[in-house]
Amino acid sequence: MTNEIYIILDLIGTFVFAVSGAVAARQRGLDVFGIFAIAFTTACGGGIIRDLCIGAIPPTGLTHLPYLLTALAAAVISMAFYSWVNILNHPVLIFDAVGLSVFAIAGTRKVLAFGFNYEMAILLGITTAVGGGVLRDVLLGRVPVILRREIYASAAMVGAAIVVFGSHMSYDINITSAIALFICFGMRFMGLHYHWNLPTFGIRKK
Amino acid sequence: MTNEIYIILDLIGTFVFAVSGAVAARQRGLDVFGIFAIAFTTACGGGIIRDLCIGAIPPTGLTHLPYLLTALAAAVISMAFYSWVNILNHPVLIFDAVGLSVFAIAGTRKVLAFGFNYEMAILLGITTAVGGGVLRDVLLGRVPVILRREIYASAAMVGAAIVVFGSHMSYDINITSAIALFICFGMRFMGLHYHWNLPTFGIRKK
Amino acid sequence: MTNEIYIILDLIGTFVFAVSGAVAARQRGLDVFGIFAIAFTTACGGGIIRDLCIGAIPPTGLTHLPYLLTALAAAVISMAFYSWVNILNHPVLIFDAVGLSVFAIAGTRKVLAFGFNYEMAILLGITTAVGGGVLRDVLLGRVPVILRREIYASAAMVGAAIVVFGSHMSYDINITSAIALFICFGMRFMGLHYHWNLPTFGIRKK
Repeated sequence: MTNEIYIILDLIGTFVFAVSGAVAARQRGLDVFGIFAIAFTTACGGGIIRDLCIGAIPPTGLTHLPYLLTALAAAVISMAFYSWVNILNHPVLIFDAVGLSVFAIAGTRKVLAFGFNYEMAILLGITTAVGGGVLRDVLLGRVPVILRREIYASAAMVGAAIVVFGSHMSYDINITSAIALFICFGMRFMGLHYHWNLPTFGIRKK
Repeated sequence: MTNEIYIILDLIGTFVFAVSGAVAARQRGLDVFGIFAIAFTTACGGGIIRDLCIGAIPPTGLTHLPYLLTALAAAVISMAFYSWVNILNHPVLIFDAVGLSVFAIAGTRKVLAFGFNYEMAILLGITTAVGGGVLRDVLLGRVPVILRREIYASAAMVGAAIVVFGSHMSYDINITSAIALFICFGMRFMGLHYHWNLPTFGIRKK
Repeated sequence: MTNEIYIILDLIGTFVFAVSGAVAARQRGLDVFGIFAIAFTTACGGGIIRDLCIGAIPPTGLTHLPYLLTALAAAVISMAFYSWVNILNHPVLIFDAVGLSVFAIAGTRKVLAFGFNYEMAILLGITTAVGGGVLRDVLLGRVPVILRREIYASAAMVGAAIVVFGSHMSYDINITSAIALFICFGMRFMGLHYHWNLPTFGIRKK
């Protein structure tokens, strides 16, 4: 039961991240293949980097067909219903927050399950959640938006840290994960709703 | 005999990809070392990413001296005969299509030979063929040209898919590879000759 | 004793590279989290790429807490004493040259210690030294500065080559390393002092 929820949430995250990649790629004028490629990279890139770093060969994102199909479906839907995606911008941001939270918690759990230490679990939990978006922005020639503003990677970090803390205290992993998911999502949602930003240091010099 | 043809085609692909890297790096004003670095990365980057993903440690591109020497020779020649390279633009594009085809087919075969599934073989076959060019463009601060226009990565995908299909049907790998090479090269060549592009969605918004 | 010197030099390199990342990230207007992320990536990115390529899982940069703490401390200090960092620009460049040298030599030694060949040792020695800076510039949307001008990666290459030569001749590794460190640092220092640049080919066309 719990596992099924995670699989569904995981595919929701994959779908929404792929939508964000496809929309950004279309705005940059990429062709159909480029849109597919960016959608897939945004959805699966973070997990692939994590798997390379923990030695999980082959990376799940490259061998598990549901991920690829979900990403391709998301790209097709984004292209076919582009004007709707813009109208649905707010719901998409909500699902994106779901994806962020699920990827952060699932990534952290996978690193711990492979027996690596807490530092690695937190760093790669964040990487799982934000790596795809960073690759998307780098490939599209933009400074990664998640490094520039808003509560985003920091929500992933808090989620990952809660999972690690729960693991250290030997709490039930499912309960800890649910709490981490809720807090990570809540931080991101509140950040969106109230336009919270992390502090910066004045004007951007180019 | 067949093997020798592949080794020669492989080095031709390495050479031509390195030329494209060196020319682009020179146009961006990089210094001599930067030109070497971009030439080598363009030629060997796709294969190195593939090898990391399939756990083929050490990656061939980093240990097999002929690749490095071919890439360096290509960079030297590009610098010494720069005006010729521009005149030879058309032949270079033809050789580039050869490199694309050989890298796609050789990459797909290597992934299958390591025992991974079809999805991974196709995804990493494409990566082998276009990964170096993507790295080149990212390092030079451009949106990867292969994601923006033309039949390029899609030709690599078709080539990889033919190899996978042939492997699934247990056809002779050398015959399948030859057909895949021919079709991949043909798609790219026709695309160049007739200026075929994949569809995009209108103006690029920055 | 010798080992302790290397650990100290290694942490100095980590610190200085993290400072360069934090300063560049702040100039680009990144938020606090982004500044931490770029500082850590600049300091540890080269070593992580090297470790992935030699199969040293988990990568030291992700599991060894002193690196993370040093990078975070460097980011905090860069933010708190930003105006000082500018005044201290010249000393920072000197320490950066120390970091470059230590990372090149330590990276080369690690690859040799893992039993890989000379080509790989030199290529990944350079990668260890300059990989973090390249990632920093790519993430900040700049063409990597080390590929554009100055004696930088070429100094790392000379340092790596000296270590490999010493290993091939079975010279004492500590003496060879000291010589390599001295020459690599010297090249970079002279390059800075006399504004030496590697040759380029005229105007940069965008």
